[in-house]
Amino acid sequence: MEMFVHDEIPSAEVDRREKVLSSLTDSVRDLVDATIRSTVADDELVAVRDEVDALVARLRVAQLPGPAGVRFNSEGRSWNWGNAVVGRGNAIAPPVLNVHDDDNATAYAEVTLGAAYEGPPGMVHGGVSALLLDQIMGETASGFKRLTMTGTLTLRYCRPLPLGPVRLDARIADENGRKITVAATIGVPGEEAAVEATGLFLIPSWAPIDETEQGWSRSAEG
Amino acid sequence: MEMFVHDEIPSAEVDRREKVLSSLTDSVRDLVDATIRSTVADDELVAVRDEVDALVARLRVAQLPGPAGVRFNSEGRSWNWGNAVVGRGNAIAPPVLNVHDDDNATAYAEVTLGAAYEGPPGMVHGGVSALLLDQIMGETASGFKRLTMTGTLTLRYCRPLPLGPVRLDARIADENGRKITVAATIGVPGEEAAVEATGLFLIPSWAPIDETEQGWSRSAEG
Repeated sequence: MEMFVHDEIPSAEVDRREKVLSSLTDSVRDLVDATIRSTVADDELVAVRDEVDALVARLRVAQLPGPAGVRFNSEGRSWNWGNAVVGRGNAIAPPVLNVHDDDNATAYAEVTLGAAYEGPPGMVHGGVSALLLDQIMGETASGFKRLTMTGTLTLRYCRPLPLGPVRLDARIADENGRKITVAATIGVPGEEAAVEATGLFLIPSWAPIDETEQGWSRSAEG
Repeated sequence: MEMFVHDEIPSAEVDRREKVLSSLTDSVRDLVDATIRSTVADDELVAVRDEVDALVARLRVAQLPGPAGVRFNSEGRSWNWGNAVVGRGNAIAPPVLNVHDDDNATAYAEVTLGAAYEGPPGMVHGGVSALLLDQIMGETASGFKRLTMTGTLTLRYCRPLPLGPVRLDARIADENGRKITVAATIGVPGEEAAVEATGLFLIPSWAPIDETEQGWSRSAEG
């Protein structure tokens, strides 16, 4: 856990950078999709590849030595731009929008999954459903107020999930000391769940049961 | 399952295209990493974004109308370039190399996971472990000889898994008619498993128990 970095950048500056970075990330995500689906001639693929390599070199002129980690400032703002599911700088992450209800015991998210998330033909990869469920279930367990870690995760695949708009729902089913049980589903919005999940999340013995540095704890998910 | 497409391209031509596409995909994967880690100035990020958009437009001059699906020719060659874990055209997919043992009852894979696969700071996202495990377990269940679908998947998170080289191991633990139980792990090579998984995979009632069109069945995983 050595990579929770105290980075004393004013929140306004973090917000500005996040906006610019998100815009680049959206374009790279678009490039991932176009690479999968393009049918242009081989020599054009090679030409585009050379241009991509040139852009990589420009970005690497100045860069972090390793992964982005999780950063926070003393205003309580935290940012985890590299997170595989919700990182604003990570083009692997689908643009998931999490919405927590007021009581913090439930959460939902809606996202459209395109060609990059395919497993069986035309369907969402079963492991992608697991990836998204793990993230939203962890966020629900932590409820923005404490650090939690995934203990066990059980997934039941009920029916294939077509690529396109999907909805995730999660709720705290049980809470007992440092053990929090979360139930969740993913499926086509308005239809029966494609995957049902149950997860046991743990508050580590070294962490407070109710964390007050809210931004910090939230970003530990995943 | 309407997207298993019979695409009568000679295998030699498929191989050539796959090689060119893989090369572009590797560069796009590199761009995903550089986007996460770059610390260049905002205006340079914006300039790079505009260049990325121009490359997307070039690739989209000719493209598939939707996801890549799974394609096969009558020589028995199949290709699933869009697959989220093993697709050669999918920059989200880490470069996983699966190696099946001769008896087809076990499989392993080694891969290095970089900044794009982060969850907790410096650690592999728990959902990414689930994603990779689901893929290798499905491939082990199908053993290249039949179509299988994930029924249930149970994951036990034993310890954090640092970003870097990881190894996956999977084996068929039990087989009973159309039900195949697979056990698998992911962890740092040579160390104790970080995540232990058990999965129940099913051969659908409409599919043969021992598929002969091997290439076709293999690519249905995910």
